[in-house]
Amino acid sequence: MKQAKTGVWLIGALGSVAATVILGATALRRGLVSSTGLITYTKEFDKLGLVDIGEMEFGGCDIRKGDLLKSLRLLSGECKAIDRRTLDTLEKDLEQTGKYISSGSIRNCGQAIEGLSNIADNNCKCLRDEIKEIRGAIQRFRDEKNLDRVVVVNLASTEPLLDLTYCHGDLNGFENSLDENDTSSVRASTLYAYAAIQEGCPYINFTPSNGALIPAIVQLAELKGVPVMGNDGKTGETLIKSALAPMFAYRALDILSWQGYNILGNMDGQVLNHPENRESKIRSKDQTLSKILGYTPHSRVGIDYVPSLGDQKTAWDFIHFRGFMGATMSLQFIWQGYDSILAAPLVLDMVRLAEFAKRRGEAGLMPQLAVFFKSPVGVNEHRLSEQYHMLKNYVKEVNKNPEKLKMIK
Amino acid sequence: MKQAKTGVWLIGALGSVAATVILGATALRRGLVSSTGLITYTKEFDKLGLVDIGEMEFGGCDIRKGDLLKSLRLLSGECKAIDRRTLDTLEKDLEQTGKYISSGSIRNCGQAIEGLSNIADNNCKCLRDEIKEIRGAIQRFRDEKNLDRVVVVNLASTEPLLDLTYCHGDLNGFENSLDENDTSSVRASTLYAYAAIQEGCPYINFTPSNGALIPAIVQLAELKGVPVMGNDGKTGETLIKSALAPMFAYRALDILSWQGYNILGNMDGQVLNHPENRESKIRSKDQTLSKILGYTPHSRVGIDYVPSLGDQKTAWDFIHFRGFMGATMSLQFIWQGYDSILAAPLVLDMVRLAEFAKRRGEAGLMPQLAVFFKSPVGVNEHRLSEQYHMLKNYVKEVNKNPEKLKMIK
Amino acid sequence: MKQAKTGVWLIGALGSVAATVILGATALRRGLVSSTGLITYTKEFDKLGLVDIGEMEFGGCDIRKGDLLKSLRLLSGECKAIDRRTLDTLEKDLEQTGKYISSGSIRNCGQAIEGLSNIADNNCKCLRDEIKEIRGAIQRFRDEKNLDRVVVVNLASTEPLLDLTYCHGDLNGFENSLDENDTSSVRASTLYAYAAIQEGCPYINFTPSNGALIPAIVQLAELKGVPVMGNDGKTGETLIKSALAPMFAYRALDILSWQGYNILGNMDGQVLNHPENRESKIRSKDQTLSKILGYTPHSRVGIDYVPSLGDQKTAWDFIHFRGFMGATMSLQFIWQGYDSILAAPLVLDMVRLAEFAKRRGEAGLMPQLAVFFKSPVGVNEHRLSEQYHMLKNYVKEVNKNPEKLKMIK
Amino acid sequence: MKQAKTGVWLIGALGSVAATVILGATALRRGLVSSTGLITYTKEFDKLGLVDIGEMEFGGCDIRKGDLLKSLRLLSGECKAIDRRTLDTLEKDLEQTGKYISSGSIRNCGQAIEGLSNIADNNCKCLRDEIKEIRGAIQRFRDEKNLDRVVVVNLASTEPLLDLTYCHGDLNGFENSLDENDTSSVRASTLYAYAAIQEGCPYINFTPSNGALIPAIVQLAELKGVPVMGNDGKTGETLIKSALAPMFAYRALDILSWQGYNILGNMDGQVLNHPENRESKIRSKDQTLSKILGYTPHSRVGIDYVPSLGDQKTAWDFIHFRGFMGATMSLQFIWQGYDSILAAPLVLDMVRLAEFAKRRGEAGLMPQLAVFFKSPVGVNEHRLSEQYHMLKNYVKEVNKNPEKLKMIK
Repeated sequence: MKQAKTGVWLIGALGSVAATVILGATALRRGLVSSTGLITYTKEFDKLGLVDIGEMEFGGCDIRKGDLLKSLRLLSGECKAIDRRTLDTLEKDLEQTGKYISSGSIRNCGQAIEGLSNIADNNCKCLRDEIKEIRGAIQRFRDEKNLDRVVVVNLASTEPLLDLTYCHGDLNGFENSLDENDTSSVRASTLYAYAAIQEGCPYINFTPSNGALIPAIVQLAELKGVPVMGNDGKTGETLIKSALAPMFAYRALDILSWQGYNILGNMDGQVLNHPENRESKIRSKDQTLSKILGYTPHSRVGIDYVPSLGDQKTAWDFIHFRGFMGATMSLQFIWQGYDSILAAPLVLDMVRLAEFAKRRGEAGLMPQLAVFFKSPVGVNEHRLSEQYHMLKNYVKEVNKNPEKLKMIK
Repeated sequence: MKQAKTGVWLIGALGSVAATVILGATALRRGLVSSTGLITYTKEFDKLGLVDIGEMEFGGCDIRKGDLLKSLRLLSGECKAIDRRTLDTLEKDLEQTGKYISSGSIRNCGQAIEGLSNIADNNCKCLRDEIKEIRGAIQRFRDEKNLDRVVVVNLASTEPLLDLTYCHGDLNGFENSLDENDTSSVRASTLYAYAAIQEGCPYINFTPSNGALIPAIVQLAELKGVPVMGNDGKTGETLIKSALAPMFAYRALDILSWQGYNILGNMDGQVLNHPENRESKIRSKDQTLSKILGYTPHSRVGIDYVPSLGDQKTAWDFIHFRGFMGATMSLQFIWQGYDSILAAPLVLDMVRLAEFAKRRGEAGLMPQLAVFFKSPVGVNEHRLSEQYHMLKNYVKEVNKNPEKLKMIK
Repeated sequence: MKQAKTGVWLIGALGSVAATVILGATALRRGLVSSTGLITYTKEFDKLGLVDIGEMEFGGCDIRKGDLLKSLRLLSGECKAIDRRTLDTLEKDLEQTGKYISSGSIRNCGQAIEGLSNIADNNCKCLRDEIKEIRGAIQRFRDEKNLDRVVVVNLASTEPLLDLTYCHGDLNGFENSLDENDTSSVRASTLYAYAAIQEGCPYINFTPSNGALIPAIVQLAELKGVPVMGNDGKTGETLIKSALAPMFAYRALDILSWQGYNILGNMDGQVLNHPENRESKIRSKDQTLSKILGYTPHSRVGIDYVPSLGDQKTAWDFIHFRGFMGATMSLQFIWQGYDSILAAPLVLDMVRLAEFAKRRGEAGLMPQLAVFFKSPVGVNEHRLSEQYHMLKNYVKEVNKNPEKLKMIK
Repeated sequence: MKQAKTGVWLIGALGSVAATVILGATALRRGLVSSTGLITYTKEFDKLGLVDIGEMEFGGCDIRKGDLLKSLRLLSGECKAIDRRTLDTLEKDLEQTGKYISSGSIRNCGQAIEGLSNIADNNCKCLRDEIKEIRGAIQRFRDEKNLDRVVVVNLASTEPLLDLTYCHGDLNGFENSLDENDTSSVRASTLYAYAAIQEGCPYINFTPSNGALIPAIVQLAELKGVPVMGNDGKTGETLIKSALAPMFAYRALDILSWQGYNILGNMDGQVLNHPENRESKIRSKDQTLSKILGYTPHSRVGIDYVPSLGDQKTAWDFIHFRGFMGATMSLQFIWQGYDSILAAPLVLDMVRLAEFAKRRGEAGLMPQLAVFFKSPVGVNEHRLSEQYHMLKNYVKEVNKNPEKLKMIK
């Protein structure tokens, strides 16, 4: 059976995560790296018939003019895990991919992000025109590459929080806002999500930006038969939190305080150094504990920009807890991981699963992907193991009832 | 309904864990401490009708002559979590309990343990007589306290490994060994387990000593309708391991090395400083990773005696792992907890659940208690969350089918 | 030789550090604790003839009405190192001392500190009158206790930074400001320092508050023959910084980043949670690195209030450095100490040395005390070992030239 | 002035440290790396006129047949700090150096080291002949490269401890042992040291092997006018220990326990996994504390082989200490450094200083180099700062009295 040809259209395509996604997929195709870190390549997922990463085509947009190879060379300086010699080997392939990266939108993205941009802003355009442009870019990518399906993934920098009002609550209201060109009601991520769904493309919001999967957009996805999911890829400190916090619950130990400090030096760190952007991130990280424990301990999540660390994020978490007879004890952990290396395989896993969901005819939120997110939209379960079992049960269910699948092609 | 009167007979009753169990139960009865740390006091367990800890009576045996109050005063010096003023308040109650602590057995316990003992050894006695003595002590405790049921818990120091031979594999063979007085086939823990089951007492092996729940003994428990479980209470480093290791599996990250170093200064530490006793402990800790991961990474568990730490165990674990594109990363954790404070509530939770199981008519192993053990006998599941759900499912099942219970009294 | 009777007048006498100073000195007098932590009790200081801590009398002031014993009972709840039973034993002595604690000043101390105060403010009074009141309190203490010398130590909460202007630069200018009642030119700490020196009392500024040892005040001390020193007792993270940073210099290793995060839960933590007060603290901590290294690496010092920790301060420092061939490496440390327990002996050591300096006829700054401070006024040396040798050389010098001493009494 | 041509003859020339020394020196000559990590390139050393590293020639011996470039390629796999592209650039130079690496001795080096060797052993030869061979190799290196002076540095794997007897105590006795071919009285390191000194070559023992600088050998060095120093380069955990332990002394804090755990995965780790070799290492590390503190706290130094870490050594140290009023507190540190990268510049610094000492006419031990060693022979000072000042004072002294120099050439 010839595989469907799948495109992956990355918002923030020159950023570290996106560049690592493209590099990793290319290296995988060329047999230079193994599938370590890709959960969909473990045997539980064998029978699903997910699209091969080696068969994927990549494109996208970015708010910086630039070229992919240069981004990767810079990244290999910050992230010892990206080997210059791999880059050299894959130079040709990467140059080819780089051609499908167009200019992105910085609509209401805040000073930190605007400061990074070196393209003209679209502020003079009306929202409907901006959406049209985004759809056009996706269409061109699909047509030129002759793709069966395109999955859109938001990997852009964290935007400032969007204050949600009644207009975001239902699709009609939101369409009106667009008609009235109420620019205050959107951020760039909102426009991308809207455009992707209108193009029938599954949409993954890997960022904490809350403007993307507002209720109105989720309704649109349901209406159009498009699967979507977010928010905020769970790659480091929160991943561990969601593995460790249940332990305290299972032992009836009271968590008194959970302090977490993250230091990192990539562009993500630079953007998160701005309080308004950081706010989005921290809010996304913060609910994990309360949801798992059923109460809210004293807690703080700090993120600081430490340039010398580059892409190597380091987190120290101090957990103070009370046990039997009132005794106070502590658990500390130190996490040292490469941000992009941890994020990239999650993106690829989700692209495979989202393409599959689209093929099956799923629409709206994909709760089976909760395990990949810090704030899984519409899912209350934050415990890692339970989230993983949601995914496993989904796979089991799908394998059990193949006749129910409305598989196209 | 008048509650059944439950006795708890502790092997190693003057040790830190046992003393904390007794102190904690007494303090709970007097309303001096809350139920923090006791999972059976959370609402999931409400409907079971477990026996109140306040209603329990305590007794046991020890290889040291001594008095409980003195042990607790010493402990309060090593473990800041044991408050001298609580001791003073409960002095009378504790003195009363102390009267039911008789002399224990050091049969084949190795030099480290024998060195701690200040009672006459029983080596001149034959095994059947030793068993008779143990049964006698349990009977006296039951009779004098007028108890409905007695749960026996092994909290003694870790014995050297018992080499299992064919005679341990089935009950007949083992009975023959006893008849022939083959002293090499047992350790003290074996005699205790055999005696407890003959007395119809549920038996919990909280230690790593492998001589207690040999196959022959489990068969005896099945035959006699006695629930038993072990081995080795999961209180610290292994607890965290069983919560964290699945995270790596759920992300398809390869664990390259997992090094763990424990330092502690209580008597447990002193005994574990002896290679032959340490071997039992380390073997018990060691299988967790392989069972969870499905492969065996480079791993080491070190235990060192650091007198100044007293009961405060500190563990440093370094986990080296490989992710996408071969990148190596690390997670470290530092655990600082009071050994006895962490162990005591598990003992009390299990006494409640074992008494309940006995009342229900369960016999043989209690897999529902796997979550409490480093090496749950007969259970292959080592992931903490899954083990916890085994317990929760048991509770759900029991609540659903109360008619199936053969509740006595 | 009958010892001179020495009084210690503590500003912030009900705070954790002061209460620990008083408790510790009392316990030392009663033989309940050893001299661990007191450097002046090591043999290098033997021949100096420093005043015995057991012979000291304590008094002071505070901005909270309260009683010393109650403060200590509260403290023993937050700081496991303060034993309730020691308090009970010393109850009488401590009650006696508590009588000499009068009302303090909150002049320009900022909202955080004012919020803690439950006494009437002095804002309606003119500065000269406030000074007169402070002097009066010191005089009463000296007279009633019949003291030969009184050492004043500032242990109050950290004030917001005082912007230094030309009026602080010389004594005449500053006296004019006082005459003109220019309240904006002082903080409470300024008034205390001025008053103490006018009373001939050596003055130690153990806080980071920069209003105390302004140049004009130092001039006054020189003029009046009074030894003074500050700022900011070096008890934890900065202490280690000053021990470790030279190591990197001695190996020609480049420090790229030094991130430090402090968490604590005592009143100090509560006050430092306010940005304006924190600013003083952080500025005081921040210069250590630059002074030791000769360059300024990327650095951050965070302080967060974590109530459950009480007096137990925990600090995590991450040091990223570059070595030979450009390799980047790291050193992390975790410090867990009781703030008050670490500070109190430094206060007592310095009282002994300041009383001695006064007796010798020293005036103005005491550079020999640099080792005790984060920001030693007038001293450029921040390396711990070198600072310690400054103190040792002072002792050696003094021992060599006893004839030069103008020892009174 | 034309510089003297200096040769560096490395024992264990294919090992990680030696290979990094050669690579680093070559890269420095080619301007590919800066002098970071080299203390003798800071301005304090400017006026001495030390030999340029760029002017040095390298040779040596090893117990493995192999080639330098291959060793370096392997190393770059284990040590991310060694960049493959640097190797490629310097390939020609490194090939050239590789030609001067001859076969080494494994005389009495123990199983661990013998197991690594793939050359014929010399056991059938008599000791005098082995020495002759070593001298011959050094002579050839000097002659072919036309060198003014050769410095010999021992960078071989740690040998088992040599039991010192009376024959090691003075030169005559030792010469007799050689004459009698008493092979039990030497290890390979002894033969190298003897041979080097006979050739007039300054000798640096960078290893813990205690057979090298036995009293008899030091006497020989004094007699022959050759400067020598050792033992055991201070690169990681002990370096920090010598910086931190004085802090506790300067605050009169009692160290109760100092536990240190080292994990590493290079060949050094592999050899130290053998108890007899580890013993040498640990003994060398162990005395630091006692010497600095004046008492011996409970202490342990563990070294474990963790292959996945390669050259990146990670150490966790837990320091438990007691402060004022008996309060116990702790400091922990985690050190993550590349072993070879930390060691190599110390070797180069010492070669420069040893060549200088030889030129000045110094003979016997060089106490000014104590700062570079874990166990500086003949030096009682273990505090890092004080050791550094010994070196600085030496430089100052030399600069002050240039006329005293008997500079040859």
